[in-house]
Amino acid sequence: MKQYTVAIVGATGAVGTQMLQCLEEQEFPVGELKLLASPRSAGKKVETPWGEVVIEAAAPECFDGVDIVLGAAEDDVAKALYPEAVHRGAVVVDNSHAFRLDEGVPLVVPEINAGDIASHHGIIANPNCATIIGLVPTWPLHQLAGVKRMIVSTYQAASGAGMPGMLELEAQIGAMGRGEEMPTPRAFAAQLASNLIPQIGGEKFEGFTSEEMKLQNEGRKIMHLPELRVNCTCVRVPVLRSHSESITLEFERDITPEQAREALAAAPGVKLVDDLEAESAHDRWPMPLDTSDQDLIYVGRVRRDISNPEALRGITFWCCGDQIRKGAATNAVQIAKLLTE
Amino acid sequence: MKQYTVAIVGATGAVGTQMLQCLEEQEFPVGELKLLASPRSAGKKVETPWGEVVIEAAAPECFDGVDIVLGAAEDDVAKALYPEAVHRGAVVVDNSHAFRLDEGVPLVVPEINAGDIASHHGIIANPNCATIIGLVPTWPLHQLAGVKRMIVSTYQAASGAGMPGMLELEAQIGAMGRGEEMPTPRAFAAQLASNLIPQIGGEKFEGFTSEEMKLQNEGRKIMHLPELRVNCTCVRVPVLRSHSESITLEFERDITPEQAREALAAAPGVKLVDDLEAESAHDRWPMPLDTSDQDLIYVGRVRRDISNPEALRGITFWCCGDQIRKGAATNAVQIAKLLTE
Repeated sequence: MKQYTVAIVGATGAVGTQMLQCLEEQEFPVGELKLLASPRSAGKKVETPWGEVVIEAAAPECFDGVDIVLGAAEDDVAKALYPEAVHRGAVVVDNSHAFRLDEGVPLVVPEINAGDIASHHGIIANPNCATIIGLVPTWPLHQLAGVKRMIVSTYQAASGAGMPGMLELEAQIGAMGRGEEMPTPRAFAAQLASNLIPQIGGEKFEGFTSEEMKLQNEGRKIMHLPELRVNCTCVRVPVLRSHSESITLEFERDITPEQAREALAAAPGVKLVDDLEAESAHDRWPMPLDTSDQDLIYVGRVRRDISNPEALRGITFWCCGDQIRKGAATNAVQIAKLLTE
Repeated sequence: MKQYTVAIVGATGAVGTQMLQCLEEQEFPVGELKLLASPRSAGKKVETPWGEVVIEAAAPECFDGVDIVLGAAEDDVAKALYPEAVHRGAVVVDNSHAFRLDEGVPLVVPEINAGDIASHHGIIANPNCATIIGLVPTWPLHQLAGVKRMIVSTYQAASGAGMPGMLELEAQIGAMGRGEEMPTPRAFAAQLASNLIPQIGGEKFEGFTSEEMKLQNEGRKIMHLPELRVNCTCVRVPVLRSHSESITLEFERDITPEQAREALAAAPGVKLVDDLEAESAHDRWPMPLDTSDQDLIYVGRVRRDISNPEALRGITFWCCGDQIRKGAATNAVQIAKLLTE
């Protein structure tokens, strides 16, 4: 079997570290591994399943001989480096926002539009975390009844702001628990512990934030639905690494909650947990704690949208998924894996 | 000025204790104060602005000579005791769910339907906390454009489960902060710290819970809108005492976000906090920490529902309010105050 030279950019961050673990878990045919990061981290040694790797400062020449780049760096790094990687013959799976909406750049959730990968010109974009987690369960329902409108309220974990976000929430909970003074918030605009912050991203369109518009703009591209309308409200919650979403869908055709549940139970990447009568709370509905550090999107609370004037044209549900894994690293490595098949 | 003999039932709980404080803050003309609770608390002494009061075990004869009862007890206590209180000539403002939907029992949010109080037959019901917090800002928008549909996702605080809920969340955060073993959850079905629990109340209708159906059933009665359709998802979040709600409204007539903001800024009981560009996070949008232990509903993130097929028929917003105060005690004392005027 062909072995690939793989480079992870942003290898020391929350997503980069997870990508390394996902390569092993998904049995990716790694021949040689390169770990790239900022100059600050260069020279550090990392034990990997493919031997000890010395972190290099990310630069164009690092990509010589690289087959696949997994990008876990910010937009500016992505814009500066990945065209250089492509120029040197690599294919880049990029988790940043830099190229997601560019023509000629497939934006891929493997459960939904794996076929789009074929049309790449060197860069394939990984969608935003909240987009992936919301769309994986929306897709099988769309296939049944044709989704035309989504109303989404998110409950997003600290990990969406990377390692600094998680460390800040842990430090705040630590201070509360020990009765110490609350450290000044830096990763977030305000204290997150025992609080909610109803803004993620800057203002983008009519008071909606960049994060809120991603679900519509990325969703349209991924599901090939240019007319899809999405109203999203993104809220940061004091949870470590699983995003949750309360989603209401409107459809072109009738769909019953039973049909929806059946489709979700059979859908790839989805685990249906929907039984209010279950003895254990873990079997009643998805919760962030139960969905952390695993790869599926858990879906529950599936019911008819009783507010929709057309009786069977709306479905409401609740879903949770690990933000660092399926929201980022897992999805990127899945795309990379498809490139090798 | 006439002075009233007031009894608080459930005086030792989170809401009962807050009612006592609200009586003082709202300068209620208390002549004599009676504090009633379970036999377990009987005999305890409480310092009040009206002197030291000895807690009595709640029983029908306690209501002899009482003018106004503030009820902060559970449904079963309410059903057993309040008809007895009415029989003895008292008017009861009840925070339980026992009588809310009964004919002849006004269900009142003073900012919305104070006029309904006049039709009481001894019992006036205080709505559910999430209902009050969601409807106070919905009402001025309804007056402008006629609301016909609400899609609501809640972010509900631990205090909704009373003092035991708050103590449990604090104990869990304490254990996390000190690195100790997590105590077994009792007030909630699962660990709430660093987690979300997407069920409040038992199953009521087509998979919606009792808590979720309250917003529709109580909302219809309070706003005199028997056709109002509400799709609500209730979620418990690790926040101490302020509920938050992400609300999308559909209207009969056109309404712009500017008109909505103007109406909210002028509405009684509402504080508009809606400026993504504000220097301080506290001036950008409402947060639970900023809205705890005060009486207003803070509203922000007011914007056009860009998913509504009719351009100006939808508004989306975010609101927060203290669950124990305006969600319960403050609203009840406001109703009682209107009874004296």
